[in-house]
Amino acid sequence: MSAKKPVVIDLKFERREVDAALASAFPGRTVLHASDPDLDLSEARYAVIWKPEPNLFERAPKLEVLFSGGAGVDHILSMPNLPDIPIVRFVDESLTTRMSEWVVLQCLSHLRQAPAYLKQQREHHWRELSQPEAKDLTVGVMGLGVLGQDSVKKLKVMGFDVIGWSRSRKTIEGVETFDSGELDAFLARTDILVGLLPLTPDTRGIFDASLFAKLRQGGALGRPVFINAGRGGSQVDADLAAALGKGILGGASLDVFEQEPLPTDSPYWAMENVIVTPHAASASDVRALFRNAEAQMERHEAGQPLQHVVDRRTGY
Amino acid sequence: MSAKKPVVIDLKFERREVDAALASAFPGRTVLHASDPDLDLSEARYAVIWKPEPNLFERAPKLEVLFSGGAGVDHILSMPNLPDIPIVRFVDESLTTRMSEWVVLQCLSHLRQAPAYLKQQREHHWRELSQPEAKDLTVGVMGLGVLGQDSVKKLKVMGFDVIGWSRSRKTIEGVETFDSGELDAFLARTDILVGLLPLTPDTRGIFDASLFAKLRQGGALGRPVFINAGRGGSQVDADLAAALGKGILGGASLDVFEQEPLPTDSPYWAMENVIVTPHAASASDVRALFRNAEAQMERHEAGQPLQHVVDRRTGY
Ligand SMILES: NC(=O)c1ccc[n+]([C@@H]2O[C@H](COP(=O)([O-])OP(=O)(O)OC[C@H]3O[C@@H](n4cnc5c(N)ncnc54)[C@H](OP(=O)(O)O)[C@@H]3O)[C@@H](O)[C@H]2O)c1
Ligand SMILES: NC(=O)c1ccc[n+]([C@@H]2O[C@H](COP(=O)([O-])OP(=O)(O)OC[C@H]3O[C@@H](n4cnc5c(N)ncnc54)[C@H](OP(=O)(O)O)[C@@H]3O)[C@@H](O)[C@H]2O)c1
Repeated sequence: MSAKKPVVIDLKFERREVDAALASAFPGRTVLHASDPDLDLSEARYAVIWKPEPNLFERAPKLEVLFSGGAGVDHILSMPNLPDIPIVRFVDESLTTRMSEWVVLQCLSHLRQAPAYLKQQREHHWRELSQPEAKDLTVGVMGLGVLGQDSVKKLKVMGFDVIGWSRSRKTIEGVETFDSGELDAFLARTDILVGLLPLTPDTRGIFDASLFAKLRQGGALGRPVFINAGRGGSQVDADLAAALGKGILGGASLDVFEQEPLPTDSPYWAMENVIVTPHAASASDVRALFRNAEAQMERHEAGQPLQHVVDRRTGY
Repeated sequence: MSAKKPVVIDLKFERREVDAALASAFPGRTVLHASDPDLDLSEARYAVIWKPEPNLFERAPKLEVLFSGGAGVDHILSMPNLPDIPIVRFVDESLTTRMSEWVVLQCLSHLRQAPAYLKQQREHHWRELSQPEAKDLTVGVMGLGVLGQDSVKKLKVMGFDVIGWSRSRKTIEGVETFDSGELDAFLARTDILVGLLPLTPDTRGIFDASLFAKLRQGGALGRPVFINAGRGGSQVDADLAAALGKGILGGASLDVFEQEPLPTDSPYWAMENVIVTPHAASASDVRALFRNAEAQMERHEAGQPLQHVVDRRTGY
């Protein structure tokens, strides 16, 4: 049995939360903090990272595995001097559940016209609005990975008609699915578009004017709605704001943006049919992240294969 | 085979919707409108009613069955000179589904702090808030009838811990249930209270200061939340507004009120943690209502027992 190998932590999360979680994480393992610029990281074999320092790989040249602090790994793959070692992404039940909470909340908010009722509330105005039901709307989910598939399942239970799109076609009971080549047919059926895609060269800027123009018009809500909790880099914010302004889109729920934090002069803040959340659809639970990473380190040290390893060719 | 018996309609719904639905409803049956004060209603055998005219029963003395325009029948049972004939309430899949949409939307809105994020949005302020997940909260549903049981099932799928309360104890997989005598124990466990009770002598004013004081304090949201889509008469609005003002309750979602429309000077409109909807949690679909009533009339005329008949002893 080999000794437990040292791990370096470089997480741009709330420091207090990281420290609290570290108190009981990684028993018997040396934990090094990249935030201390004078610390010798040369013996570290693992790194748990979220938006790490650019010089991390120079300081820690013996790394064997990188653990992403979140489900997405675009923040790692874009790093300079990235060593050719496995990158493990964070897959966790609580992360998945909370993403589905957010997605279902946003779909129901638009279905039940929460922004319009809220406006009436501000005006002390009592008036019933038309009330289509979930089955009258088709929610199209782009990205049928760990997160997308859980959201699809829960949207179905709430009664929505659900369809899905992914690179390779998926088989999901009760859900019509489309593959990369069938994007236009998928969009033409979609009243509420939900983005749960990773940011890769293929998905960068995919949510643009031409895509919004292909969504179904005249559905039960009148105009299509765009919901994104994947990555801001997949969306062209100028196009999106214009589509909302022109009424090509009837509303949106946005958790991610090209520029984060969202600039204070962004038009989204003040749009009545747009719900803005600050990249908080599903925050990583740091305790669970460390539990996950430790379990995988133990697998690695026992000679077992790592799980949830990123495919560098596809970028996720 | 006896001829189809005449039906009188007295629905205080939107007239246009009623007329549109009537165009294809009740084929081969005489349809009489109570809204015409000069019309002879004396031969009517059925009445489909929502908040009917007080003199309806004098004008239509040969009624055999009353059909409620909604799930609730308090508007009928409180009528003067109510004849001793069966009252059939409206039970319908779409009514149930849309109520669950509203209930799940409201529970998720409070779980995911939608009002607080909205306030930040108005202030163009980007800040992540703490993020408990659904399983960290116990939703207590009062009323486990047609509506309550569907809501419970969907809240469970979304991950909430769910408990339920009803007059007679129910058995629901994965849900701890309480009966009338165990109200205090139920309340002490509840972080989000959902009211889906009919209005009866027993439930009038049940949501009062003493009940709010028994809800669990210090749960994952800090303070308990009250959600009501049953009937406004079950809630003491003065007590509720005071509990919200004093911070005994941390928030509320209210679809029903002692006085409807909600008076423009009600404090609820302006409370940041209170979501007001205008008795619109689940509107009756008039087409479905008429389809349902016609099917039951046919049962009745074929000598079969009516379904969903109200028990006058309990009042629902
Ligand atoms: N806002 C937040 O708080 C938050 C939190 C967590 C995660 N996220 C984001 O959510 C993303 C998805 O997470 P996940 O765990 O579900 O990822 P995942 O399991 O890797 O799934 C990714 C899905 O996207 C599809 N996809 C990728 N590239 C595609 C392309 N070019 N064309 C069509 N489909 C493509 C994949 O198709 P195949 O199935 O064919 O491979 C797969 O279905 C993450 O990458 C992250 O950026 C955001
Ligand atoms: N806001 C809206 O848009 C809207 C729309 C539709 C309906 N509603 C309201 O929702 C109510 C419920 O509808 P439903 O179809 O679910 O009714 P239901 O099937 O008759 O169920 C009523 C439930 O309440 C329980 N209950 C009644 N009196 C009680 C008491 N004194 N103590 C404890 N539990 C009691 C019953 O207990 P048992 O199971 O032991 O009988 C039952 O579980 C309707 O009456 C109506 O007022 C509102």
